[in-house]
Amino acid sequence: MRGEKIPVGILGATGIVGQRLVALLEQHPWFEVTEVAASDRSAGLRYEEAVHWLLPSPIPERVRRLVVKECAPGLECQLVFSALPADVAAEVEPEFARAGYVVCSNASAHRLEPDVPLLIPEVNPDHLQAIAHQRRRRGWARGFIVTNPNCSTIHLTLVLKPLMDRFGLRQVMVTTLQALSGAGYPGVTSLDIVDNVIPFIKNEEEKLETETRKLLGRWEGEGFAFAPLRISAQCNRVPTLDGHMECVSLAFERRPTREEIIEALASFASVPQQLRLPTAPARPIVVREEPDRPQPRLDREVERGMASVVGRIRPCAILDYKMVILGHNTIRGAAGAALLNAELLLAQGWLP
Amino acid sequence: MRGEKIPVGILGATGIVGQRLVALLEQHPWFEVTEVAASDRSAGLRYEEAVHWLLPSPIPERVRRLVVKECAPGLECQLVFSALPADVAAEVEPEFARAGYVVCSNASAHRLEPDVPLLIPEVNPDHLQAIAHQRRRRGWARGFIVTNPNCSTIHLTLVLKPLMDRFGLRQVMVTTLQALSGAGYPGVTSLDIVDNVIPFIKNEEEKLETETRKLLGRWEGEGFAFAPLRISAQCNRVPTLDGHMECVSLAFERRPTREEIIEALASFASVPQQLRLPTAPARPIVVREEPDRPQPRLDREVERGMASVVGRIRPCAILDYKMVILGHNTIRGAAGAALLNAELLLAQGWLP
Amino acid sequence: MRGEKIPVGILGATGIVGQRLVALLEQHPWFEVTEVAASDRSAGLRYEEAVHWLLPSPIPERVRRLVVKECAPGLECQLVFSALPADVAAEVEPEFARAGYVVCSNASAHRLEPDVPLLIPEVNPDHLQAIAHQRRRRGWARGFIVTNPNCSTIHLTLVLKPLMDRFGLRQVMVTTLQALSGAGYPGVTSLDIVDNVIPFIKNEEEKLETETRKLLGRWEGEGFAFAPLRISAQCNRVPTLDGHMECVSLAFERRPTREEIIEALASFASVPQQLRLPTAPARPIVVREEPDRPQPRLDREVERGMASVVGRIRPCAILDYKMVILGHNTIRGAAGAALLNAELLLAQGWLP
Amino acid sequence: MRGEKIPVGILGATGIVGQRLVALLEQHPWFEVTEVAASDRSAGLRYEEAVHWLLPSPIPERVRRLVVKECAPGLECQLVFSALPADVAAEVEPEFARAGYVVCSNASAHRLEPDVPLLIPEVNPDHLQAIAHQRRRRGWARGFIVTNPNCSTIHLTLVLKPLMDRFGLRQVMVTTLQALSGAGYPGVTSLDIVDNVIPFIKNEEEKLETETRKLLGRWEGEGFAFAPLRISAQCNRVPTLDGHMECVSLAFERRPTREEIIEALASFASVPQQLRLPTAPARPIVVREEPDRPQPRLDREVERGMASVVGRIRPCAILDYKMVILGHNTIRGAAGAALLNAELLLAQGWLP
Repeated sequence: MRGEKIPVGILGATGIVGQRLVALLEQHPWFEVTEVAASDRSAGLRYEEAVHWLLPSPIPERVRRLVVKECAPGLECQLVFSALPADVAAEVEPEFARAGYVVCSNASAHRLEPDVPLLIPEVNPDHLQAIAHQRRRRGWARGFIVTNPNCSTIHLTLVLKPLMDRFGLRQVMVTTLQALSGAGYPGVTSLDIVDNVIPFIKNEEEKLETETRKLLGRWEGEGFAFAPLRISAQCNRVPTLDGHMECVSLAFERRPTREEIIEALASFASVPQQLRLPTAPARPIVVREEPDRPQPRLDREVERGMASVVGRIRPCAILDYKMVILGHNTIRGAAGAALLNAELLLAQGWLP
Repeated sequence: MRGEKIPVGILGATGIVGQRLVALLEQHPWFEVTEVAASDRSAGLRYEEAVHWLLPSPIPERVRRLVVKECAPGLECQLVFSALPADVAAEVEPEFARAGYVVCSNASAHRLEPDVPLLIPEVNPDHLQAIAHQRRRRGWARGFIVTNPNCSTIHLTLVLKPLMDRFGLRQVMVTTLQALSGAGYPGVTSLDIVDNVIPFIKNEEEKLETETRKLLGRWEGEGFAFAPLRISAQCNRVPTLDGHMECVSLAFERRPTREEIIEALASFASVPQQLRLPTAPARPIVVREEPDRPQPRLDREVERGMASVVGRIRPCAILDYKMVILGHNTIRGAAGAALLNAELLLAQGWLP
Repeated sequence: MRGEKIPVGILGATGIVGQRLVALLEQHPWFEVTEVAASDRSAGLRYEEAVHWLLPSPIPERVRRLVVKECAPGLECQLVFSALPADVAAEVEPEFARAGYVVCSNASAHRLEPDVPLLIPEVNPDHLQAIAHQRRRRGWARGFIVTNPNCSTIHLTLVLKPLMDRFGLRQVMVTTLQALSGAGYPGVTSLDIVDNVIPFIKNEEEKLETETRKLLGRWEGEGFAFAPLRISAQCNRVPTLDGHMECVSLAFERRPTREEIIEALASFASVPQQLRLPTAPARPIVVREEPDRPQPRLDREVERGMASVVGRIRPCAILDYKMVILGHNTIRGAAGAALLNAELLLAQGWLP
Repeated sequence: MRGEKIPVGILGATGIVGQRLVALLEQHPWFEVTEVAASDRSAGLRYEEAVHWLLPSPIPERVRRLVVKECAPGLECQLVFSALPADVAAEVEPEFARAGYVVCSNASAHRLEPDVPLLIPEVNPDHLQAIAHQRRRRGWARGFIVTNPNCSTIHLTLVLKPLMDRFGLRQVMVTTLQALSGAGYPGVTSLDIVDNVIPFIKNEEEKLETETRKLLGRWEGEGFAFAPLRISAQCNRVPTLDGHMECVSLAFERRPTREEIIEALASFASVPQQLRLPTAPARPIVVREEPDRPQPRLDREVERGMASVVGRIRPCAILDYKMVILGHNTIRGAAGAALLNAELLLAQGWLP
């Protein structure tokens, strides 16, 4: 059986998201990590020498001794996950796609390009239609790039999707309280964040306000029509390790009851659930009724970190309803998102 | 000189706000702490024995050896500061007022009563007119109760005041990130908040939504007319020691430019500044232009903890402008607020 | 199969250690939680209503709906785990033993009694011989009490055992850095520990200095001969959630080489490993060679929290060798310790 | 008066220790900062542009607008404080001394050189005699280098000094719990230390074990005779912002009573107190009797951060006595140490 798994590579394998990918792929039924690539500084070392491993689970045995390669085509696999920094991804990912690789990218570099799917399998699986256009336009024979959104955007959008479908969405106000791991490693230095909050994350508000509208928009054959939503975001860094929290206020086209909202969220299931993709959560959205939930440390592991947890659903004095969203930022918000995208690609026949 | 200072008592002197009062009054030019009162558990002990002192400065020498009294009339002073829990304050404060004491209260018990001033000296000093009505209505000869708002309300309202005066205010969306000291001692246990955020503070959203409207309203001879604002609040507890942060979005009657907002905030001064009250900040509102300020640990001590610090002023895609407010929750947000109220009372001749 | 599991009860089931027991017993091959008992305040509620659940895994389905009973004989099981506070345990545990229950206790109440085994299955399984004496002396027909040590003692002693056996031990200096969960819930309040360290844990130094010597001593038919070691402990509380760290310096009877120490630790295995007890770690002691390990967050989950992790083994300028020990305080240090004791009792025929 | 102050420069002025120096010198009666120097990256910028200011007090007005220079002779002053990294200090400090500057260095580069005083004014003021030898040996006409010890060494040695003088010292076991600011900026990243402890600080144990012995040793005309002590150190990084804690165990030549120890510590005063140096603490050592003190957040500011606070003095089962020491690591442990050294130099006529 093992010999039949699909070999995959990880670009940026030593970073926080790369580590999560290594861990999530350890027991994966379809994929097997055969290549790890990182910056020149790490290339040539064994993975265990190159990585500053931050997860409580040990480095998987198979990956521990892999020799880290450079981030350039030549890896022995046809599918690569990219956990590269945006500026590196901007150059490297197209090289891989041109060389025939399927690239599932967590990087922001190509998310907003008019021929690149920005994908959440539960939200906009039909956006994969853009792949054919992407290949044509760029002259790529077999390879292509599919991206997943920013870590805070994923959880927001996952929750907005069933609400938009049922009640129509007009306005979204969101204030985030984001975890440290979202800044990568080394990221935020302790002297800046112990006993503190930083009310600024570079480019994050723009990503939330833009990516969400592409995700909830439509593929129109030659490009994406963004959803006609108004979104306003304020982003903060708080001293939690994992788990982004979002305080949201929403205005609908048709004001639902509180029960209708809960029902729409709790019953939500979509293509990944129907296809039983291995990494798909049974419940993409989990609703909590306690007055003080969700909380990052207590709820980030729900559904192995692949769900968005929603609580405190209540009326808003200005827009229609307020609620609190919580989700794991490096699992569903990054590594798990890229992996679920790859699973959808395989299940729908996009992999060679 | 020292003998001429006005003797004051502190009710609830061993709690966090009581401790701040003790510290703020140490070198006060007008007042001198001669009485400390607390729960029966502490009564009879010397203050240094009864208190679990949490401030980095030492217990002031004069107060250290005062014997803690019970919270009942009989204290040798005519002005008392109340840092009592709400349920105790509900009973004890009227007893003191009836017995002739002036009560400057930080407790929530009487804040919303129709004959009790809820006071921020920079915002609504004219609300002190209600005192005469309060005495008449309750049959109190000399004593009365004046309250200060909740810790997060004070900083929000201080910032809203000049904006409302200049541009008119219609809507206020606010999401708070509040410090641990706001919950008192022992308050939040470490197992609940290390590596975590709690998206709920009991009654806090209601206080923000209601108190703000009383503060910005008008005294109308027999009661207060609340300001016709719509306010929607979401409150979170984060693992910072001191300093409440508030992410705010505002809709105005007349949309100002960004420069007009900055000018209105930075130039704001009011009665406490004109009267040069000892605890009044030179600048009640400090505007920062850096992209990542204000921050709790770096900005909570500005103007000795008596200012509100505002930053990140920028347009909002839904309402008109967004900004971030930061203020010390136990100084300007509690102990300093009660003290500034007492200073205004003295300066305007309300003390015996 | 399920019907054949041995029913067990948990006394003090709603506390931190009680919760860990519930979680560890969820999939246990031999035991099944059928009774949960707690203070009168909780009795009568369903477990999910009574508990302030702090673990990231959800409450096990079977236990969630159990009705919490009072801590008094009458529970339908013959084996109870006690995670009671010491003062309650002092009274309740003998009542259970007298009524015929086998009590595996994590409480300190009876640890030092001359007829009660203080047990770490890898260290002193022969101390179970005291049970017969205990029953005789107290007139208990079937029941008895077995205790496990304090959380920091367990990890220290587990590491000392193979070293004492091979090289003889004369002196042990230990300074601990202990996690918040060791204080139970609510335990340490956040205002006391954020940005701080507390160099004092009530009775902890005494426990370390005394319990270790009983564990490493001998059962002599009528009582325990404590090991003739000199131990000096300094205990600190630090702001980590789980995982006690101990900086140790040791003097031996025969000074080993560094390699001999590593070999003695890394090769250590004992009765639980030979009996393949379900909760026994494959490696009770894990040695790390990196210069900066062990660390609480990275190493506390090794061997599912049942191992002691040792690093930084190096010469000491005063005694012979220094090293750093790290172990999970509520798993191997409490709940897992009580459970492993019960497994040993079952395997050796002590359970009815 | 102000015109008569002595102009001083700060090398490495933008780092954490440099910032503390800027703050401590703001109101200094003798010195005035006229020059700030830092790495090439900062040179040419105004100080407020170059620095990532981390202190709660604002940047002093006079320094705010100073243009940052390169760290090379040419600064308009004759006294420079060096807060440079060790490798830079190794080259730059001798250049300054050769060019005639008096260098008060916090860097480790020259601390152990046989002709450089490693100075704590309360401990070994007579070591300044080495300056004449240093100049002769190196051919420096007017300049010279004086260093202060490592941050954890200073507090340990300050406490050991009166004990050694009175009772003789044979052995010192010390386990440290060190604050984040000791690692400089950016220093320890938050992902490495939140909910964690790191049992390793590069070179720190060696510094503690060696510098202490030089400080407590004697100048013998051509070199220093180190004190014949045995010291064994274990160093840990914990998530506190400021304040190093040290758990110490001591063996004496003549075993004192507990009261004699307290008396020796509490009554300690030395040259800086006799000379009334401006930065000298009135009490260099403060003894606390509470069972749970000292604590970093509560005690680091004692005597404006210039004292060592000692508590938990009690017998040790292996050596003679145990105790806990706490001191501010960037004030008395670094910036204040260099400043006090300079004050002693001025008071004793060593400055031009």
